[in-house]
Amino acid sequence: MAGPAALPVSPLAVPMDPVPPVPGVRMATAAAGIRYQGRTDVLAMAFPPGTAVAGVFTRNRCPGAPVDWCRAALPGGRARALVVNAGNSNVFTGQAGRDACLAVAEAAARLVGCRPKEVFLASTGVIGEPLPAGRITAALPGLFAALREDAWQDAARAIMTTDTFPKAAFRTARIGGQAVTIAGIAKGSGMIAPDMATMLCFLATDAKIPPAALQAALKAGVDRSFNATTVDSDTSTSDTVLLFATGQAKHPRIPAEGGPLLREFRAALADLLLDLALRVVRDGEGAQKLIRIEVTGAVSPRSARKVGLAVANSPLVKTAIAGEDANWGRIVMAVGKSGEPAERDRLSVAIGGVWIAREGSVVPGYDESPVVAHMKGREIAIAVDLGLGRGKSTVWTCDLTHGYIDINGAYRS
Amino acid sequence: MAGPAALPVSPLAVPMDPVPPVPGVRMATAAAGIRYQGRTDVLAMAFPPGTAVAGVFTRNRCPGAPVDWCRAALPGGRARALVVNAGNSNVFTGQAGRDACLAVAEAAARLVGCRPKEVFLASTGVIGEPLPAGRITAALPGLFAALREDAWQDAARAIMTTDTFPKAAFRTARIGGQAVTIAGIAKGSGMIAPDMATMLCFLATDAKIPPAALQAALKAGVDRSFNATTVDSDTSTSDTVLLFATGQAKHPRIPAEGGPLLREFRAALADLLLDLALRVVRDGEGAQKLIRIEVTGAVSPRSARKVGLAVANSPLVKTAIAGEDANWGRIVMAVGKSGEPAERDRLSVAIGGVWIAREGSVVPGYDESPVVAHMKGREIAIAVDLGLGRGKSTVWTCDLTHGYIDINGAYRS
Repeated sequence: MAGPAALPVSPLAVPMDPVPPVPGVRMATAAAGIRYQGRTDVLAMAFPPGTAVAGVFTRNRCPGAPVDWCRAALPGGRARALVVNAGNSNVFTGQAGRDACLAVAEAAARLVGCRPKEVFLASTGVIGEPLPAGRITAALPGLFAALREDAWQDAARAIMTTDTFPKAAFRTARIGGQAVTIAGIAKGSGMIAPDMATMLCFLATDAKIPPAALQAALKAGVDRSFNATTVDSDTSTSDTVLLFATGQAKHPRIPAEGGPLLREFRAALADLLLDLALRVVRDGEGAQKLIRIEVTGAVSPRSARKVGLAVANSPLVKTAIAGEDANWGRIVMAVGKSGEPAERDRLSVAIGGVWIAREGSVVPGYDESPVVAHMKGREIAIAVDLGLGRGKSTVWTCDLTHGYIDINGAYRS
Repeated sequence: MAGPAALPVSPLAVPMDPVPPVPGVRMATAAAGIRYQGRTDVLAMAFPPGTAVAGVFTRNRCPGAPVDWCRAALPGGRARALVVNAGNSNVFTGQAGRDACLAVAEAAARLVGCRPKEVFLASTGVIGEPLPAGRITAALPGLFAALREDAWQDAARAIMTTDTFPKAAFRTARIGGQAVTIAGIAKGSGMIAPDMATMLCFLATDAKIPPAALQAALKAGVDRSFNATTVDSDTSTSDTVLLFATGQAKHPRIPAEGGPLLREFRAALADLLLDLALRVVRDGEGAQKLIRIEVTGAVSPRSARKVGLAVANSPLVKTAIAGEDANWGRIVMAVGKSGEPAERDRLSVAIGGVWIAREGSVVPGYDESPVVAHMKGREIAIAVDLGLGRGKSTVWTCDLTHGYIDINGAYRS
């Protein structure tokens, strides 16, 4: 089984940010041979006592054992360690999968000196094969002996599967005049669909934020970023976003419910989540173009989101864009099939800023040439106005190309 | 723009049935040059006075002008003519599209000697371009002068777009001891998704059935056939199924509500609809394999249908099958993402009759070899048991291959 190195790097790739250390967060990676050879595939992170944690998980009804583990651990609100492996998702593995989670968490807890429920877990890769937990527990002593603050880029590499480039980014924000850092890494390329926290994303900050306020900020940010993206409409069984706050920064105390002191932090977090989510879409399996779909005039924001996703998940829209065909009729079709309130004779569609269709027919004298030029670019902008209300939403996806078929007809992930 | 002749014939193609004449139904085809050259693209049918009609149409919110026309005409319950064109769908064409419908219906009505509302219309092809109605009305006098009873196969050819083979079939049934015929043609290849009457399908019978009973029989049959199939999850703006009953057969009188006399007719109609629907799936754009997904143990039939469609529309499942990979983990993922009640630890999955996964993990000692052999065939059988209730449903789809990308990245339809 070839690792991700076998795939050409996405033409939409962007380099990792030079992520700085986040006070209190230390990490290390190792090559444990879970499935791939010649690359790192296990990541361990350790956090100081008092670290708060927030998490958002897949809504798939067949979640992996690590997702169940994290969901059960999250109400405690505290974390001391994170262990992630690539190559095997520990999904649909029954009791053996649960046992594997417990074994890894207990081993990490002994090394850190904490309770197993303060260890968070994630796995990504093939579904339905037993996780070789022994290879992970064997690697843990070495990992926890080698922890460093400046290994975010190594961490991003260790969690890749079909990803063609590693994804790491950061932001800074002030809380009561004191600067804090938020750093994050993500992985994902296929089995990417919204309505959950898509794929794996781990974030850490030195801010000191109570778990409830941290959770609220994370949930709001995920909804407008990961949950507004789709590669292939297939919701993974492993999707996990975790945010750890070490509390090492010296800013004023944040109340449990958050409040105005967190305004800049929340905005920076949301911006970072969107940055990471778009890196995942840019690495969508076979992607050649990044597509932004702005829906306005819907009866509600929720309805706008659904219309946007109907367009974003339409194979006919995605293949037309891959073929650089400004086939706006397929956008009309996709809006109409969404099941959301829409009226053909009030609908308007634009590509690349040019309004093509308005109120039930093509704009008189429509000149296709600027739209044809736009279609040749790497970033495609679609706008849909439903003309019904004030609901709006923006979603992102990529095109559907031969590369997607190649990757998924051959790689068992 | 190349016509369908440019595409290789689907490996799943089946020959047309030798459809016999249906007493009272006459038809003719012509090459009107709507979009294609060197092939027929207009079909006209005429029916005797007293012919009843039933219809089921797309639920897309941006329907074509001919769909609006038929919906408005259907409550009359009577039909004298049908005019269909390929190459242009007359969708999102505003007032010009409505005017084109009226012009064609009025021209046909004059030739037949009926009211325009007794003329049914359908169009298929590119979206958003004005329909050259003048080319159709110019062809109508010749068409209505050349009507024949034995032209079902010509009719099937005239309505093709990206179809790689024509689709025609028939059944017979007895009503009160008297034999009747039901004949049908269909077209469709891409933009095929359920929850409506998929694509174009025209049926005729010599039975004498009141419109209400005819509509009920059609609706029931469509639900288990066209509405249980998907090629690409994209619901067309033109989907239309029409059934005409000429009443030429000499069977006992059928009451308005149908009743037990129609039992055999209903079963034959449902069987014919499924036959035609599967021909459409066999001609799914790029299809190399026909996939049947049987879902059992759901909380309701509706829930079973939704689970089946989640599997059938999953790009990851469809590409795995294209790659002949028995990747049952992706089936688990698709069941879980359906949003329907499902419990990972009660779920079982079989491929080719071999149960692979049961109750949350792989079956002990699972031997992949018979499943690998099954995956190399043309017809793939997937079974999913949810272990929750008695709801069941069967849906059909095809695999997702490079052919789909080729066709839809290049052909503006």
